[in-house]
Order: sequence, then C-alpha cells, then structure tokens
Amino acid sequence: MTDAMTADLAGRPIRVGLDVGGTKIDAVAVDPSGDIIARRRRPTGWGEDAVVASIVDVITDLAVDGGFASTAVGTVGVGIPGLVDADTGRVLHAVNLGVESLDLSERASAIVGAPVRVENDVKAAALGAAALRGIEGSMAYLNLGTGVAAGIVVDGAIWRGSRGTAGEVGHLSVDPNGRVCGCGQRGCIETFCGGGALARAWGRPGALPVRDILDAAESGDPTATALRADLFHGAAAAVRALVLSADVERVIIGGGLTALGDRLFTGIRGALRTGAEASPFMRSLQLDDRIELLPDGSPAAAFGAAIVGATTPSKEIVPHG
Amino acid sequence: MTDAMTADLAGRPIRVGLDVGGTKIDAVAVDPSGDIIARRRRPTGWGEDAVVASIVDVITDLAVDGGFASTAVGTVGVGIPGLVDADTGRVLHAVNLGVESLDLSERASAIVGAPVRVENDVKAAALGAAALRGIEGSMAYLNLGTGVAAGIVVDGAIWRGSRGTAGEVGHLSVDPNGRVCGCGQRGCIETFCGGGALARAWGRPGALPVRDILDAAESGDPTATALRADLFHGAAAAVRALVLSADVERVIIGGGLTALGDRLFTGIRGALRTGAEASPFMRSLQLDDRIELLPDGSPAAAFGAAIVGATTPSKEIVPHG
Repeated sequence: MTDAMTADLAGRPIRVGLDVGGTKIDAVAVDPSGDIIARRRRPTGWGEDAVVASIVDVITDLAVDGGFASTAVGTVGVGIPGLVDADTGRVLHAVNLGVESLDLSERASAIVGAPVRVENDVKAAALGAAALRGIEGSMAYLNLGTGVAAGIVVDGAIWRGSRGTAGEVGHLSVDPNGRVCGCGQRGCIETFCGGGALARAWGRPGALPVRDILDAAESGDPTATALRADLFHGAAAAVRALVLSADVERVIIGGGLTALGDRLFTGIRGALRTGAEASPFMRSLQLDDRIELLPDGSPAAAFGAAIVGATTPSKEIVPHG
Repeated sequence: MTDAMTADLAGRPIRVGLDVGGTKIDAVAVDPSGDIIARRRRPTGWGEDAVVASIVDVITDLAVDGGFASTAVGTVGVGIPGLVDADTGRVLHAVNLGVESLDLSERASAIVGAPVRVENDVKAAALGAAALRGIEGSMAYLNLGTGVAAGIVVDGAIWRGSRGTAGEVGHLSVDPNGRVCGCGQRGCIETFCGGGALARAWGRPGALPVRDILDAAESGDPTATALRADLFHGAAAAVRALVLSADVERVIIGGGLTALGDRLFTGIRGALRTGAEASPFMRSLQLDDRIELLPDGSPAAAFGAAIVGATTPSKEIVPHG
C-alpha cells in the first residue's frame, strides 16, 4: 500500500479503482487501511458517452454494495486500454471500447465529484499486482490477454520509460519466419502467446480458444500441440526479454489467459527450464523461480487503478518555476 | 559531469579513469572542471599481478603526461570485463585478462594511495557515454565488440536492475533456427552482431574480420553479404529490445566495431528503417533517430570509469541501522 493511499481525506475515505476492459468493468472500493470493502463487475458501454456512464453507474453500485455514501469517495482511478495521457486523463484510440478521443478524467470527475485519474490498463494492473504481492523492488506484470504487454514497477512506482513504451515486449520479434503480427512485423512475441493471435491461428470458434487449444493438445491434435508450444515459448521469451533488459526481480503473469490456471503456469515454467538446460548463463538467472501467476479473477487491475487514483502525480508537488 | 566529480578533494584534484580491456588499458586523467587533461594507452598485463601492475604503471605515466604529481590523484575508477562486485571492488572470471579472482580495489588502492572503485566495463562506458553526450534522461550504451551487451543509464546513474543483468540483450534469442551462441542458446542477438560470432562464421583470418566482411560484401561475396545483413539486423534487434523493454530515449553504440565508422551506423539505421516500413507501430518509435555512434577511439569508457571512481556509492551515505 502506498503512503498516499493510506492518507484519509476529511470525510472522503474511500478510494475507488476501475479496470475498464473491452467487455466488462471490474471495480473495487478500498478503505483507508487498504482493504477491498466492495467489488462489482458490469458490462462496459460502447462509445464515449456510454463508457463514462458505465463508470459512473458502477461507482453508484459499489457504494450500495459497500454501504458508503457516494460522497465518501475521495479519489477514483481508472485503468483503460488505448493511448492514455496520465497527466491530462485523456484517452485516445481505445478501439475495443469504441473510443476515439475522450477527456475521461474531466468528464467523469464532473459527475462523480471526486478527482478521476486515468492510466493505461496494463500499467495500472502492474501497480496493483506489485501491491497485492507485496513486491518492493522491481517487477514486471506480463499481461497475456488478447494482446501481450508488460508494465514495469520499480520501488512501488510505474516505470514509464522515455516515451511510454517500457514493457512493450509483445512486439519484439523472436522469429524472422514467424506469423505476421497485427503490428506489421513478423514473429512478434504476441504472435506466439497473444490470445488473439492464437485464436486466429487455431481458426475454430469458442469462448476461450486458448483453452480449446490446450484441451485439443492433450488429446494429441498436432496443430493444437504446436500452438501450445508457441504459447509457452512466447511467454518464456517475454520473461527473458524483461529480465535481460530491465532485469526486474520478478515477473507476475496476469491477463485473460490466467483462466487457464496451472496449465499455463506449468507450461511457461517448463519452457523456461528447457531453455535453461542448454545454457549455463540462462540457468544462472533462475527465471523459473522468478515468475508467478495471478489467480484467475484477481482484482489486481482494479486495485492498481485505485492506487493510481490515490497517488498524487509528482508534477503536482513540484513548485512551478 | 556529476556533482560528485566536480568536488575537489583538498590537494588531490585529479580523477583517474581506466578502461581495462583484453589487450590494452585506456586511461584518462580528469581535472575538477571535468576536462580530460591527459590520456594514455598501454598493453594490459596477463594474470592478476600483471593487471594490478599495469594499472599502477599507467597512472604513473598519466601523471607525467598531465604534469601532476601522483599524490594529486584523488580517486581512481576502473572499468573491467568479467563479473564485478562494485561494492567490494572484487573481479571474478575475467577470462580475457587471465584473472580468476582479484581484489582489485584493495590491491590497487594500497599501491596508488587513493580509493579505487571498480565497475563492469560496459556499465562504466555507459556512464561515460551519457556524460560525454550530455544525455540527462535515459539512455543505453550498446557495446558491439567481441560480444554484445548494453549498459543502461537513467538520470546520470547506472541502472543495475535486480541482479546486475540489466542490458544483457546480447543473449536474447531472435531466431530459433539461428547459430548456436557461446551461451548455449540458439539465435542470440550476439550471434548476429558480435564480432566474435561473425569472425567465427566468416572463418578467415584478419585483424578486424568484420571489416573484411563489409569489404567482401561490397565486392559481392554472398557469404559476406549475408553476414553483413546479420550484423545490421542483430544490432537493430538490440536497439528494439532496449526501447521496447526499458524504453530508453537514446541508444549510443560503442565498442570495437565502431572502427567500421559510418558503414556500421548507416547499416544499423537502414535496418531500423526497413523494419519500420512494415509496421506503423515501429515507425512511431522513430528508432532511426534515437541511435548515435561513438567515434572510433572515444574515451567514453575511461571517462566513465573516472566518474565511477568519483562517485560515492549510495550505501556509504546511508546511515547504518
């Protein structure tokens, strides 16, 4: 828990955090001691007005669930996909939400009556995962969902890098002959272990195609077996990239693919161990011991958004000069 | 220039920095205003005693060249390959120097009569390159020599990561069917753009085999043409890995291969541009504008070592608790 988060605002002690995804919003209310006192999920609206409305609605629902007045909400933090300007709270090109350009911070705070801070969803989730797991040094949150991206947290703060692309390991190419990625390159890590890329390569309908792939692989289907190997290989490559560049101490794996549970974790760990067998250098890194899997349904992303909301940006505490 | 470096020690104003390589030591003397007032190169001795002796000798030579007394040397910093414990100044497994285990800091400071700090050579060079280029935000120094490794500097300080492997992008695999690397993996970035790996693949004798490769490629030799493409492809992959993980603002390329000069720079920039043609995302990163090449013979590594020597480690200014 950050110091900023434990600070009480007179009469407005509740911190709200929302993880806004393409299909649903996951929202939590956090009390001054850092405990989640209410949690609510609801479908995300489509388009700018509907996104704002669903954010406002879920906060109202949360207050009912948590037994607090809406006026007790001191801060709101929102994690959302797309290009986010964390300073202004503006969201651009969130294509999965039907949002082209939205002054989310300004519009939502006018209705909610509390400051609303906005952050990229993966970066917010990284902050939440680090806090929930009690990681104090450096860590990366590797999000395996439709796409693949990581957020890096160092000493409790998001590591942004110079232009906001820190942790974008999904678009490192690891095979010049690999599948073409949505980004235009070939063999990106995301083409190996992104849920979207795997579903396209599998080509059969299903609620969670990657689960179907694992099931079919266990039944001996050769296409599924190859795709399963790709999944584990790609995720292992992402872990290696994060450690061999930023050298984070731990890599926490989250995102939609965590619904696969232990099969995912065991597979990635196995790929890391296989890679280490051939290389004393890789073995010395002990990567298989440095990964963790978030439990399916973990509130890390919403909790991280609550931390974002509760954190005073450094620019506000620097005197104007 | 760091604040620590400009501070004068009463009567001992000279900062000495040494870059200890497998064949030669490059040494500089830096005055309190940060100017290099003397520079000397000499062969490196082989084995522990000879390495210490050559360090002591080159400092004596520097004093003669710079017109200062040996007793005017306030601090000494040494950049050296191998496993370096920057806290204790101990060097392990510097195989190119015939050093298995050496308490370099303790032994050298006893003779020189000034504190001697020791740092990994690439990390020290990164610090020097950032200072010489006046880079204040984040940067990586990508060393293309016999091997390939990078050092990351953020806000004027070495970014170590959790276990000292930050910047080790040379051992990221970017081709599952690539050449076997000395580290045991296949298709590591170092197998594409490391001078040692390229020389082995080329297989013909020569003082600077990579120059021979470029010359032969320009004459149409197909093997050389393929290896030249590997060189530029591998270095571009290293730049991408550094930006898509740590998101450094700039990548400064140094190391022995900078003797190739503009042919190297133009080739790497071309590979980055070709990669960006296919990908709007990569294009948005403007990687071709974010790289620089150190001039051949740059004193960056020795200058960085002088900064290392002049910098008080943070652990010494933290009260014991």
